[in-house]
Amino acid sequence: MLVSGRRRLLTALLQAQKWPFQPSRDMRLVQFWAPHLVGPHLGLETGNGGGIINLNAFDPTLPKTMTQFLEQGEATLSVARRALAAQLPVLPRLEVTFLAPVTRPDKVVCVGMNYVDHCKEQNVPVPKEPIIFSKFASSIVGPYDEVVLPPQSQEVDWEVELAVVIGKKGKHIKATDAMAHMAGFTVAHDVSARDCLTRRNGKQWLLGKTFDTFCPLGPALVTKDSVADPHNLKICCRVNGEVVQSSTTNQMVFKTEDLIAWVSQFVTFYPGDVNLTWTPPGVGVFRKPPVFLKKGDEVQCEIEELGVIINKVV
Amino acid sequence: MLVSGRRRLLTALLQAQKWPFQPSRDMRLVQFWAPHLVGPHLGLETGNGGGIINLNAFDPTLPKTMTQFLEQGEATLSVARRALAAQLPVLPRLEVTFLAPVTRPDKVVCVGMNYVDHCKEQNVPVPKEPIIFSKFASSIVGPYDEVVLPPQSQEVDWEVELAVVIGKKGKHIKATDAMAHMAGFTVAHDVSARDCLTRRNGKQWLLGKTFDTFCPLGPALVTKDSVADPHNLKICCRVNGEVVQSSTTNQMVFKTEDLIAWVSQFVTFYPGDVNLTWTPPGVGVFRKPPVFLKKGDEVQCEIEELGVIINKVV
Repeated sequence: MLVSGRRRLLTALLQAQKWPFQPSRDMRLVQFWAPHLVGPHLGLETGNGGGIINLNAFDPTLPKTMTQFLEQGEATLSVARRALAAQLPVLPRLEVTFLAPVTRPDKVVCVGMNYVDHCKEQNVPVPKEPIIFSKFASSIVGPYDEVVLPPQSQEVDWEVELAVVIGKKGKHIKATDAMAHMAGFTVAHDVSARDCLTRRNGKQWLLGKTFDTFCPLGPALVTKDSVADPHNLKICCRVNGEVVQSSTTNQMVFKTEDLIAWVSQFVTFYPGDVNLTWTPPGVGVFRKPPVFLKKGDEVQCEIEELGVIINKVV
Repeated sequence: MLVSGRRRLLTALLQAQKWPFQPSRDMRLVQFWAPHLVGPHLGLETGNGGGIINLNAFDPTLPKTMTQFLEQGEATLSVARRALAAQLPVLPRLEVTFLAPVTRPDKVVCVGMNYVDHCKEQNVPVPKEPIIFSKFASSIVGPYDEVVLPPQSQEVDWEVELAVVIGKKGKHIKATDAMAHMAGFTVAHDVSARDCLTRRNGKQWLLGKTFDTFCPLGPALVTKDSVADPHNLKICCRVNGEVVQSSTTNQMVFKTEDLIAWVSQFVTFYPGDVNLTWTPPGVGVFRKPPVFLKKGDEVQCEIEELGVIINKVV
């Protein structure tokens, strides 16, 4: 049943892929499970949509979680680089279950109103300072996991977002130093219960953003040196195959470096921390009439060079 | 220098202690460091304000973090119970450094407007539903650590709070089952930057609540079976020795079981998750004129049966 579900998702993934597959030597780190392995493992995706190299088999001294991997910095990254250069066995994609590339981070930071074209859509001025909110780490699920509609909301909406993953601890980080603190990038779906955001919980956004399963991430943490320009990537969301959001990350008001610098004026970043960077126009709540997710929908969030995550709504 | 600082704090603690010391067989779990040990260890406080039993020395198979200890449930608790009954060496309090009893939990949940007397002070109705917000885990510090005034705020305020620590994973927990999911209780200082809460960040409370050092916790996680009635505990805060908040936990609008049940309708709780339960009247912002914390102040947050945490403002 599960395998068949995954097979269906992979078929959808292949059909959904608008940009050509490029088997590459880019570093695409994943967390995965496989039936013949005990517990989660670290791996390398062999190109966008490719099979998986088991990093823990290549070097059994490597940690088995991404957070611990990132905490060890250059030492573990150099092992991953050697694995990438070697001729290693590749697990077919259908034989593994993908976890989010980061699980149980110290924090999931989110920013509001950070796309110029999204601000124009709502006819609001671009913000002068980032507006920061959060999700609990418990809302994170894997790239092909289901999004569960909660009974408390009738207005669950989609939001594709670029996510930055922190690689190095830091506080009071300057924007010019921020890239040195980033490990890389991944695709996020910032699922949002609009009615809970605007009409409940004293207008504190947390609860409407943090239901379980409301933060699919993945499929891979693509290291920063593997991404040509994080602020020039096509970003799109499809619901049941129809494109609902389509923009590029050059529309961000505050660039990733500015966001890391801003948030680090308030809190210390730790390896594994996830930063969502807001979404382009086209979310359901601003459609006329508004459209929200319903059971059976399939949402595909895709970012050029990073990959696509596919989440069925149940 | 550090030892002298700790000695000063202990002196203050002894002077501050309004309720008598009671060496007891209550289970008071702590995380601590000591110069002769490598890394953080788990321990038992021998009564409120007493010395420390090294649980990892008693049983080297025990985990060294509270979260892992709680994840193992009854198995590890029964070891701690055996340690409590045995005649074991006690480390003098001055020879250890206390960490927060829980560090790096999956989430720190906070609730707003949850004391009847605090609502009366502000002349606002008691809320019909809990208002939930959060701090990042990175804001947690130890029971005698310093609170650092951030340059972004001129209005940093005190809030003593009862904190519930989760012991067992759960979702959709009924209020009648909630106590089974709690490990116990500890004292929290919910340090709050009022100007950031009300006049910045789009009125999302997160940033004003989550600066580094804004969540001192401790000194011990007092297990639930060691607390007679969590809703009948004196709770008070002193700033530079002057009582500024004094109430009892029976003033809570939503009891701890109701809060756990409420939040678990939205998110899954994991062992180690921390739930702050709001504060009684007497915070600085509602004084006439308002009073805020300044460098050199010393804040003592105390809850009957649980203990006192003492944090110098720097």
